[in-house]
Amino acid sequence: MSVVLSRDSQVRVMEDTVTNAEKHLGQFCSMLAAYTRKTAQVRDKADRLVKQLTDFANTEHPEMRATLRSFAEDLAKVQDYRQAEVERLETKVISPLKLYGAHIKQTRAEIKKLKQVQKNEIKQLAKLGKLRQKSPSDRLTISQAETSVQRASADASHTTHQLGEMIEAFQKRKLTDLQKIFSDFVTIEMVLHAKAVEVYSSAFQTLENYDPERDLEDFRAKMHGLYGHRDARPLTETVSSPAVPWSLTGQSAQTALRGERREDEETMEASAEEDLRGRGRALHQ
Amino acid sequence: MSVVLSRDSQVRVMEDTVTNAEKHLGQFCSMLAAYTRKTAQVRDKADRLVKQLTDFANTEHPEMRATLRSFAEDLAKVQDYRQAEVERLETKVISPLKLYGAHIKQTRAEIKKLKQVQKNEIKQLAKLGKLRQKSPSDRLTISQAETSVQRASADASHTTHQLGEMIEAFQKRKLTDLQKIFSDFVTIEMVLHAKAVEVYSSAFQTLENYDPERDLEDFRAKMHGLYGHRDARPLTETVSSPAVPWSLTGQSAQTALRGERREDEETMEASAEEDLRGRGRALHQ
Repeated sequence: MSVVLSRDSQVRVMEDTVTNAEKHLGQFCSMLAAYTRKTAQVRDKADRLVKQLTDFANTEHPEMRATLRSFAEDLAKVQDYRQAEVERLETKVISPLKLYGAHIKQTRAEIKKLKQVQKNEIKQLAKLGKLRQKSPSDRLTISQAETSVQRASADASHTTHQLGEMIEAFQKRKLTDLQKIFSDFVTIEMVLHAKAVEVYSSAFQTLENYDPERDLEDFRAKMHGLYGHRDARPLTETVSSPAVPWSLTGQSAQTALRGERREDEETMEASAEEDLRGRGRALHQ
Repeated sequence: MSVVLSRDSQVRVMEDTVTNAEKHLGQFCSMLAAYTRKTAQVRDKADRLVKQLTDFANTEHPEMRATLRSFAEDLAKVQDYRQAEVERLETKVISPLKLYGAHIKQTRAEIKKLKQVQKNEIKQLAKLGKLRQKSPSDRLTISQAETSVQRASADASHTTHQLGEMIEAFQKRKLTDLQKIFSDFVTIEMVLHAKAVEVYSSAFQTLENYDPERDLEDFRAKMHGLYGHRDARPLTETVSSPAVPWSLTGQSAQTALRGERREDEETMEASAEEDLRGRGRALHQ
């Protein structure tokens, strides 16, 4: 009977292992999904800031215009990295945790089967005990019942052993998967942060180099009605964007550039919205 | 009359300058506040993950327990930096932009005064014109009206000049303030990202060094009912936390540690909630 008790405690350890994994991995999954959603929202807010910076740049004098555009481009780059972060968190962190749901369900079904087998062993043992008490002289029936107990015990022993190996494999997979998932989380975060440091370093330089003096000269000229001076300065002089290969001067060039930017912005916004919708679906599944 | 027209167009440039600043700086302020709020929410989600990691660590075998605790501590450190980021964004980015509200209101009041002065000039001019038409021979009244026009013109000229200087100063301050505010934004973000790279590098190493073998030995022993072995291993061997100066072994030590961590976590959570509430108020003002 002590073997039966030992098997029973083994099953309890197995059940606890699976229940604990189910509870905590499920919580990790939903918490990391929430973290990822909030990160996507930071990206969205920054995307709006990028758009606003670009709109504002178009109302400013050339030096500030170029500075703001360059800053907006850098800010947009960081959001691209954040978008990559969000996508990679979904693929390498949230999805593997989600897969545990099915894995745990399957393991739980195996434990249930084992419990049936153990129940049968106990039933056979009880039957044998009753027979021995009621008809101690009925050797044949007792012998048959003993065979049934032996068969049921062998079955229980075999199944417990098999399931033990399965649960050990389950635990091992859980440990190495968690190691992998959290390592991936850290790596994904590190990539974002490292890239952001790189991009913001360049943005900082651009902002540092801005000198308001020439813009103020333009502003004075405009205020005192000396139009023309402002547009005489070639725009490309201070525009660092590689998207402007030709030399632009004057108002019409400014309008052209503005149209171009707006289109870019709209495409970006549209795809960002699409992303969010797609993402919202994925995360709420 | 062309002087009057020129003054009129100057006022229009002034008004446009202030209106443009009001519109865009206001939008920057609310967008950066939204960005900051979302960042605070990312911090909150990560704080929950820290708590969950600590709770889960307490249910795991020693090696994984130590690994998860170390990872949770690193993740918490990054949130401390994020909290600093949020506070600095409020102080150095959002607050200066908020201050523009009052500044713009004041400048707008000055422009209104100037418009009154200009209106008076036009009124005096009209009066003089009417007099000349109606009573061209009334030299005395015409002369008085001429003096009034001269006085109103001098007043308008003086006020326009003064306001011109004020608007120029306004524009200059706007340009240098934006340069400073965006530079500060970039610096604050850079500090967070650089610190996060540092902390996550160490977290990555901890996770890489985790070896599930010893935990699996413990698990096997537990499953086969060989209790005692698991708790015989000193916990401090793999615990990198400086918060545990004494040597801890066995179940009671684990419970003590758990209690200690919980308290820390609760304090942290409570203050985080308080922060958010405080922040929510500040940002919605």
